[in-house]
Amino acid sequence: MRALLISGGLAMVVALFGTPLFIRWLVRRQYGQFIRQDGPTAHFTKRGTPTMGGVVIIAASLFGYFGSKVVTGSAPTTSALLALFLMTGLGVVGLLDDYIKISRQRSLGLRARWKIVGQGLVGVAFSVLALQFPNEHFRTPASTQVSFIRDTNLDLAFKGATVGLILFVIWANFLITAWSNAVNLTDGLDGLATGVSLIVFGAYVVVGIWQNNQSCQNILTAGPRCYETRDPLDLAIVAAAITGALFGFLWWNASPARIFMGDTGSLALGGALAALTILSRTEILGAIIGGMFVLIVLSDVIQIGFFKLTGKRVFKMAPLHHHFELSGWGEVTIVIRFWLIAGLFVAVGVGVFYAEWVTG
Amino acid sequence: MRALLISGGLAMVVALFGTPLFIRWLVRRQYGQFIRQDGPTAHFTKRGTPTMGGVVIIAASLFGYFGSKVVTGSAPTTSALLALFLMTGLGVVGLLDDYIKISRQRSLGLRARWKIVGQGLVGVAFSVLALQFPNEHFRTPASTQVSFIRDTNLDLAFKGATVGLILFVIWANFLITAWSNAVNLTDGLDGLATGVSLIVFGAYVVVGIWQNNQSCQNILTAGPRCYETRDPLDLAIVAAAITGALFGFLWWNASPARIFMGDTGSLALGGALAALTILSRTEILGAIIGGMFVLIVLSDVIQIGFFKLTGKRVFKMAPLHHHFELSGWGEVTIVIRFWLIAGLFVAVGVGVFYAEWVTG
Repeated sequence: MRALLISGGLAMVVALFGTPLFIRWLVRRQYGQFIRQDGPTAHFTKRGTPTMGGVVIIAASLFGYFGSKVVTGSAPTTSALLALFLMTGLGVVGLLDDYIKISRQRSLGLRARWKIVGQGLVGVAFSVLALQFPNEHFRTPASTQVSFIRDTNLDLAFKGATVGLILFVIWANFLITAWSNAVNLTDGLDGLATGVSLIVFGAYVVVGIWQNNQSCQNILTAGPRCYETRDPLDLAIVAAAITGALFGFLWWNASPARIFMGDTGSLALGGALAALTILSRTEILGAIIGGMFVLIVLSDVIQIGFFKLTGKRVFKMAPLHHHFELSGWGEVTIVIRFWLIAGLFVAVGVGVFYAEWVTG
Repeated sequence: MRALLISGGLAMVVALFGTPLFIRWLVRRQYGQFIRQDGPTAHFTKRGTPTMGGVVIIAASLFGYFGSKVVTGSAPTTSALLALFLMTGLGVVGLLDDYIKISRQRSLGLRARWKIVGQGLVGVAFSVLALQFPNEHFRTPASTQVSFIRDTNLDLAFKGATVGLILFVIWANFLITAWSNAVNLTDGLDGLATGVSLIVFGAYVVVGIWQNNQSCQNILTAGPRCYETRDPLDLAIVAAAITGALFGFLWWNASPARIFMGDTGSLALGGALAALTILSRTEILGAIIGGMFVLIVLSDVIQIGFFKLTGKRVFKMAPLHHHFELSGWGEVTIVIRFWLIAGLFVAVGVGVFYAEWVTG
């Protein structure tokens, strides 16, 4: 518990006080955001707001996590390091993208091909490594079983180690790509992606604590409904660090935003979320907890699919938040209501998680 | 757990769909808010926004609580009924005040004397009743001991039953008055009091669940660090109902507010919060969990006290949120930042609550 508070607290303080310093530095170097040309026209006024705020989120999260390790004198675990690696790795890909957008003065950034290559390299490295490093109970950070609230019977390694590894890498990379795109799409209104992420990562603190309390590795108290997670408490500490960082960042990122998280932030957060769902073995549950992100991705998929099939649009503009913007809702109204819906998804997701334990 | 989800869910649905109906009804009857003449001038544009939204919060909370009782087929407990009585009783006092403001077309409402009489009657009834109704373990809803995280050694009944009762009634009414004034003062910007309350009542769901899991009344699992609360789970169900109601109400109350909660809402919420702290025996801890409210009251007290002493002002305007408004922060910026601070207080408060249990 102490480690959780230290981790979250340190990350929050770093983000809260680091963000304005970073803003000042960015403004001095004239690194402003170029708003996408195909978004709502009202957004053109946002031109010039500094971006790449994800740098602060990543730095604060790393500082919070490692700071709490130093203060409590405990060693980092493999699971936590893997989650932070995926977060930072994707953050670097996003940073390159953001940087090219700014220095070339165009809104499109890194070429799609190189972005996919970068994400792929980080994602494959993460997923291969996540199946190594068994601990003294022979548990690896990830499992080859697809997980809902815990591992299911659907084992990707059903045809042996090699096929299993390949299928797992594909599955993990699907999750990583899906989540990083989801956060990226959500990051379209001031404070929207930050606030939704704050709520979702907060939920993963609870999931980690609970999995640790009911861990199968605790020989003394492990019941029949225990959780097979390698390092649940340390994943909670990672989630607490990210939650703290988002907390401090939201102070500056809420309407009117003084800074955007950029692809640096959205890819990093998507990666961290994918890592948490994979390593806590809640891959499908994650889609309920992060249901607001899923909803926004779905709105985009439905819009594009329907348009290709029929030539008509379902929404005035995708993703979803732009639809409501063009429907006349204020930006703040949309953001706060989407936060509320995100909170609802988290309540349902954590409720399902707990109910499975109680009734199981 | 099921009862909690039903209670919160029902209250949310009622508030979410009931509020716009109530707004339409109020607008048709031309019941709009008269903005205080001594507030920031920018607020004059808010004239005409319907108020008395607290009616929906109270109705939705009652519906959620009793609905969950009906669905789960369990009987209401004395503690829960007392909390809902205090909430509704103070809400009625607030409603009279709001109604007089509107019908007499003035911003000041019920005369201070009658308001105090009304609050006093409800508060005394609550506090006297809260010491009756021992259950089969001889536990009454409230205790005469002042409580921090649990009852302390400071017993108000040290001089016998009568003096103890009187001292307890005074102490309980101090808490009730303090909390209802605190929520009332906080209710000055769109969504501020609603959002802060949402976070605080959400925390009391967690406190109630935890106290129930570690209750001294559970003979089988009660450890030496158990909690002496009469009906902890049912208080969590009440808190869940109020949280759900606030959730649905915030949808309409967030900037730009379509409706205000009015004194109906702020007195009811203050009463409910006072009841929860008294009945869960966390009277002092409540001041940490609800620290954002305390901060706002303190700003007012400091402003008035300092002005009377020195003739100078500490803040540009009290309570605190008006100070920042006059300092040029946007309304939304203040509200979201105050929500964040409220979340921080809750994290610290719940952290202290849990840490006391772990280290105790």
